[in-house]
Amino acid sequence: MTAKVLDGKQIAVDYRAGLAKEVEALKAQGVTPNLTVILVGNDGASQSYVNNKKKSAEKIGMSSEIIHLDETTTEETLLNEIEKLNDDANVHGILVQVPLPKQIDETKVLEKIAPEKDVDGFNPINIGRLYAGVETYIPCTPLGIMEILKNADMDLEGKDVAVIGRSHIVGQPVSKLLTDANATVTLLHSRSKNMKEVLKRSDVIVSAVGKPGLVTKEDVKPGAVVVDVGNTVVDGKLTGDVKYDEVSEVASAITPVPGGVGPLTITMVLNNTLLAAKRSMK
Amino acid sequence: MTAKVLDGKQIAVDYRAGLAKEVEALKAQGVTPNLTVILVGNDGASQSYVNNKKKSAEKIGMSSEIIHLDETTTEETLLNEIEKLNDDANVHGILVQVPLPKQIDETKVLEKIAPEKDVDGFNPINIGRLYAGVETYIPCTPLGIMEILKNADMDLEGKDVAVIGRSHIVGQPVSKLLTDANATVTLLHSRSKNMKEVLKRSDVIVSAVGKPGLVTKEDVKPGAVVVDVGNTVVDGKLTGDVKYDEVSEVASAITPVPGGVGPLTITMVLNNTLLAAKRSMK
Repeated sequence: MTAKVLDGKQIAVDYRAGLAKEVEALKAQGVTPNLTVILVGNDGASQSYVNNKKKSAEKIGMSSEIIHLDETTTEETLLNEIEKLNDDANVHGILVQVPLPKQIDETKVLEKIAPEKDVDGFNPINIGRLYAGVETYIPCTPLGIMEILKNADMDLEGKDVAVIGRSHIVGQPVSKLLTDANATVTLLHSRSKNMKEVLKRSDVIVSAVGKPGLVTKEDVKPGAVVVDVGNTVVDGKLTGDVKYDEVSEVASAITPVPGGVGPLTITMVLNNTLLAAKRSMK
Repeated sequence: MTAKVLDGKQIAVDYRAGLAKEVEALKAQGVTPNLTVILVGNDGASQSYVNNKKKSAEKIGMSSEIIHLDETTTEETLLNEIEKLNDDANVHGILVQVPLPKQIDETKVLEKIAPEKDVDGFNPINIGRLYAGVETYIPCTPLGIMEILKNADMDLEGKDVAVIGRSHIVGQPVSKLLTDANATVTLLHSRSKNMKEVLKRSDVIVSAVGKPGLVTKEDVKPGAVVVDVGNTVVDGKLTGDVKYDEVSEVASAITPVPGGVGPLTITMVLNNTLLAAKRSMK
């Protein structure tokens, strides 16, 4: 068997085309969805992420601003800046790029972003609302994974799913979304003693660890769907957790790295910003 | 094998004795931990729960009040009542007994309780903080389950744990706590296709469904630990999910119903109220 390639780039292109149409419709009603991103300091990778988000938003017709604050910005200044954006009716989505300089408490910052503008879904109140089953913003990588899985030709109902990695950014929330989709989820992590056995009996594997070579051909049940959320830079190259070439021989569908989950994450930032704009009109 | 009985009543008695000492110490510093419970309407079961909480708090030296509001109370009146308690420095823990009359939106009420006084841990912001790994109040039944498991003579590290039931009150948060304890958790539910196989290979089973007879002797691996969170009234008798008599023959440790998890739940309300009083002194 050669696995179907779950082409995140193409899935993202199609999804964004749908978003662009909805943005156009909102603009016709006088509302231009706006994504505002706060960047503190001059980290090169962060600058490139932030610019990418702005460009992606503009490409589908949204407006987008970057607020660039100095590396030495105090926590109070940042909190005041967020407060202003919370109060600005023209801003629908607010992102604060992490990591933040060490003088700033990340938890305080995330809790300051108005829940209805928290398009990353990182404010604990939105995480809690996800678990409580009330209206929220779902974190973008887990949401992107669910979108990719729609393209895998597998009904998740009652399926055995192994999620590797227990972070609150990916592993935990994607486990929740998969459980909501009626899958039976086993959450694996660095202290799991029987990872290989669990993987081998799973219909779907989602790996979000950052450990290249972790998932091998021997671990994967023939016909399983494999989603690789790892993105570790090895010799200057973005590398996933899964041995792509060999696992492709046994899986029924697989995401490449790069070009798998990555493009969907930003897509879901845009998705949530559109949602925020729509909800603001109610 | 005959299973060790995990005697929740006795574990609760011992735990509360420890809390009583801490309450005494706080009182010596001029702070009397206070638990205030709001009851709306005249449901008989709810009245009995609320009285039980008050009595339990007083028994370990705390002060406790019940605010009893009429069945026809408006949402606004209830929210104002909560606001007053939020602002009252003498109140450390606030509980609102559910279910609420249908004119009141439960989510709004839970989100109104100040996070630092939310000793049930049901305000979404506290649920989110649990997942984000920051200071919070952990819901009382999951916390009680973890306390009971300490008495089961089993190190959870790397163990296979099956949790049955995906509610945000028990199944989901106890899965999170078990994962934090380095167990490998599989979350089962009504749509799981392979429940029997998962149970059979598990070192620990936590059942929180409310379906008497769900877990039988055949489902349980010899030596497993079984925690029964079910509490369904059958012929006037509180009945768990587990066939206690037969499962006792194969398990290494098991909770009875009643007298298992139940007594620990109220104990953890008291635990969280003490914690809230301590945190208020910082």
